Amino acid sequence: MAGEPFVDRLVRRIEELENPLCVGIDPVLGRIPAHIREEAARRHGQNERGAAAALYLFGAAVVDAVAPLVPAVKLQSAFFEAYGGAGVEAFWQLVLYARQKGLLVIADAKRGDIGSTAAAYADAFLGHEAPVSAWADPDRYADALTVNPYLGSDALEPFVKRAAALGRGLFVLVKTSNPGAAELQDQVLLSGETLALQAAKLVDALGAKHVGRSGFSAVGAVVGATYPEDLARLRAWLPHTFFLVPGYGAQGAGAAEVAGAFLPGGRGALVVAARSIIYAFSSEHAGPEEFRASVAAAARSAALDLRAAARRAT
Amino acid sequence: MAGEPFVDRLVRRIEELENPLCVGIDPVLGRIPAHIREEAARRHGQNERGAAAALYLFGAAVVDAVAPLVPAVKLQSAFFEAYGGAGVEAFWQLVLYARQKGLLVIADAKRGDIGSTAAAYADAFLGHEAPVSAWADPDRYADALTVNPYLGSDALEPFVKRAAALGRGLFVLVKTSNPGAAELQDQVLLSGETLALQAAKLVDALGAKHVGRSGFSAVGAVVGATYPEDLARLRAWLPHTFFLVPGYGAQGAGAAEVAGAFLPGGRGALVVAARSIIYAFSSEHAGPEEFRASVAAAARSAALDLRAAARRAT
Repeated sequence: MAGEPFVDRLVRRIEELENPLCVGIDPVLGRIPAHIREEAARRHGQNERGAAAALYLFGAAVVDAVAPLVPAVKLQSAFFEAYGGAGVEAFWQLVLYARQKGLLVIADAKRGDIGSTAAAYADAFLGHEAPVSAWADPDRYADALTVNPYLGSDALEPFVKRAAALGRGLFVLVKTSNPGAAELQDQVLLSGETLALQAAKLVDALGAKHVGRSGFSAVGAVVGATYPEDLARLRAWLPHTFFLVPGYGAQGAGAAEVAGAFLPGGRGALVVAARSIIYAFSSEHAGPEEFRASVAAAARSAALDLRAAARRAT
Repeated sequence: MAGEPFVDRLVRRIEELENPLCVGIDPVLGRIPAHIREEAARRHGQNERGAAAALYLFGAAVVDAVAPLVPAVKLQSAFFEAYGGAGVEAFWQLVLYARQKGLLVIADAKRGDIGSTAAAYADAFLGHEAPVSAWADPDRYADALTVNPYLGSDALEPFVKRAAALGRGLFVLVKTSNPGAAELQDQVLLSGETLALQAAKLVDALGAKHVGRSGFSAVGAVVGATYPEDLARLRAWLPHTFFLVPGYGAQGAGAAEVAGAFLPGGRGALVVAARSIIYAFSSEHAGPEEFRASVAAAARSAALDLRAAARRAT
């Protein structure tokens, strides 16, 4: 039932494409090309269902443009949740569509809660435990999920257990890419270590029993490219942890900043670019072909940049 | 548009009922009375839609039983998300139903993300900003939302701004009720303070500009009853912060442990009991009337217990 672990599939796919780029799909209704919004409104009206359809159609067009080029996409749940049940339904339809196109799908939902509630989030994102799953299509779930460590390891364990059982993956927030990340994550403890390092140690401990053939564990870490020194330091501390690296592109980090995310041989990291790719078209009146071409060109350019960064890693 | 702030409405309602009990609705499909599950399956089949309908019918029955007795309910989002778009639709239908019955509704979703993503979560849970809201019913949103502070104050600010603009509330995780809470939250910093206190200071600073007539701010804190010493200490540090207190009942804390959550006069805290109330019925074959009576009796008993605890606060 488990199948090949997510992280091993991810490593193989990155090697096949020689490309550690993950396209982030963060669809904001007002920024979606007019032709997509109009089609969605024609089908469903100017309501939550119409908005959700626009997000799906936009996401599917991004998937079509990038599926041959990149190993993975990351879908930001918040933008879909903004349109209620219809939005969440669109999210899961898009997950299924991206998987059918051969992409690995990371659900960026940053969940975190205790005990049975964490298990319910694992049900929601990674797949139900048998026998409740009898009627659920295993392909309708994500390959991996982002989670928040603030509640401690007993709140992460239900996610780890489920990921290991179903061949899925996790990325635990360690050092995020935003300006305020330092407020709590850089606090120095009596031990002389930062809180982010403490979170990194939880990640390492939780993943130790779940290392796949690739040498990486099922429990990855989110480490932003906007703090390159922390990125390089955490990379050295966590040799068996796969990194999901936001902050590249629109958030300001370039290839030089991301380089520290990679282990020698250019392994161990997947770098996310979202807005710089999905909004690469010139105006909201871009037609379907211009949209596709602009997204594919931006993804190709970022991929070349990151390939070079990964090759430089020592 | 903003109307009366959530926290002021909450304080008034607690005083009217002389009762600081919040009923937690955490519906696990397998624990729902058979007559509800059967009705849902008859209507929708043995699938996600049927499961979602069972959660809604169960939650609505809890609401019917407790609406005259308590000021607020807390809905745990995870259990609904476990059934995809249909589950999330059921969640929002239940929010609307509970509000129509006069209850204040806290969405327990523990969200946390950066910048525009945090704003999208605020759209989802607290209400869209105009003019996107033209087609959305303001009553379909929650009165308040739980959020996670790990990403820092810039990640919390979009939530605070929206809550203040729309008369809603927030509860930021400070010290959670689970066994592993200590791992990160009790870490002692170079300053000699714990991480939880650092989070408490963020809460205080973010709320300072948003104090309502009740004397409490729009930015509350989640502090578990399972760590009564921390609860009392944080209570003393945060005189303008309303506390949402989990851990009472099935998680092990009693009236003595919760007492420290209250300010003199018994103000300033809402105590959550979930499983000890919603699963108070004797067997899964309990009929509608036994179910209603058992839930109401458990809520009444907890309310009396907490009223006494609040009165003892000095």
